[in-house]
Amino acid sequence: MSSIATTPAPPYYAVIFTAIASKMQDGYLETVQQMHALAKDSPGFLGMESAGHVLEITVSYWKDEESILDWKKNAAHQVAQELGRKKWYEAYFVRVSKVERAYGLVTE
Amino acid sequence: MSSIATTPAPPYYAVIFTAIASKMQDGYLETVQQMHALAKDSPGFLGMESAGHVLEITVSYWKDEESILDWKKNAAHQVAQELGRKKWYEAYFVRVSKVERAYGLVTE
Repeated sequence: MSSIATTPAPPYYAVIFTAIASKMQDGYLETVQQMHALAKDSPGFLGMESAGHVLEITVSYWKDEESILDWKKNAAHQVAQELGRKKWYEAYFVRVSKVERAYGLVTE
Repeated sequence: MSSIATTPAPPYYAVIFTAIASKMQDGYLETVQQMHALAKDSPGFLGMESAGHVLEITVSYWKDEESILDWKKNAAHQVAQELGRKKWYEAYFVRVSKVERAYGLVTE
């Protein structure tokens, strides 16, 4: 996960998830890994970047809004969302955005 | 910087900056702090979130595209961008996106 996601030319979507971790972290890392693996198999998934410890930022990239809504409704993901809200996060915020342009210096 | 940015109702813009740090980090942290302070004073700046160590993700939020382009042209920021490209980053990628919807659980 510690690499820059390879994404196609815009437009595509970015879901910016920011969270402040709470003290109760049992089961958290296992679930995060499971969700990352599941998201990768979800239709329209393009890539993901994740960083941070207390303030966690995870950006996932998607083909379109429909893919994002499908992934949000995934049964295992719904359980993880509920655990996140109730247990793992003091606060969190989700921003769904449309990537309009992109550039950079990426060496493979 | 280790908090969730308070942003207005969409639409607004998110600049997603992802970078892989290189080994040469002299002057880096000082410049990052200086740039964060400068960005805050830049017209249209709405907020910023930053996390990560080797993989760094910084998301800054802006009122509109014009504000983003103005900040990109800021003289001190241009010097920092050049140092980032030449010295501090092995790789980086910038995605400019329009936030269309947002939700979360934020306790003040």
